[in-house]
Amino acid sequence: MKARIIVTLKTGVLDPQGKAIESALKSFGIEEVGSVRQGKVFDVEIVAADGAGVEATLRTACEKLLANTVVENYAIEIV
Amino acid sequence: MKARIIVTLKTGVLDPQGKAIESALKSFGIEEVGSVRQGKVFDVEIVAADGAGVEATLRTACEKLLANTVVENYAIEIV
Repeated sequence: MKARIIVTLKTGVLDPQGKAIESALKSFGIEEVGSVRQGKVFDVEIVAADGAGVEATLRTACEKLLANTVVENYAIEIV
Repeated sequence: MKARIIVTLKTGVLDPQGKAIESALKSFGIEEVGSVRQGKVFDVEIVAADGAGVEATLRTACEKLLANTVVENYAIEIV
C-alpha cells in the first residue's frame, strides 16, 4: 500500500526559502509568480494487510517525526 | 490562481534522505514502513487572467529552477 504525505508550513509562518524561490523565478523572467511556499512530500510504502490501521500509523509517523506540528500542517493521502 | 508542484526523485535514483527517514521511523517502532522517498512541494500563486498560459509558465519554472530534470520528475496540479 502506498501513501503520500504532504507537509506544509502553517499560514502566517515565515518561509524565507519560498521567498528566495519567488525572487529567483522573477529574476528568470517569470513575473506572473505571486507567492511561493515550499513544503515536503514523503512517498511511503506501507506493509499492511488491511487499510484500516494504515492512516493511524501514518498519523503517528507524522506526529512523531515527519512534521513539526507547531509550525507545520500535514496531509495524508492513500494512493 | 493557485498551483501545486510536486518534485520527486526518478525511480532508480538513490535517496539517502528517504532511507534515513525509513530507519528513523523503524526505530520509533513504526515497523510497517516499507520504503520512504522524499520530495519537495511548491505551492505557487500565479497572477494570471486566464488559465491557458499558466501551465506553460509553471512548466518553464520547473525546467529552469524547481526541478533537476536529470534526476527528478515534476507534476503540476492547478487547484
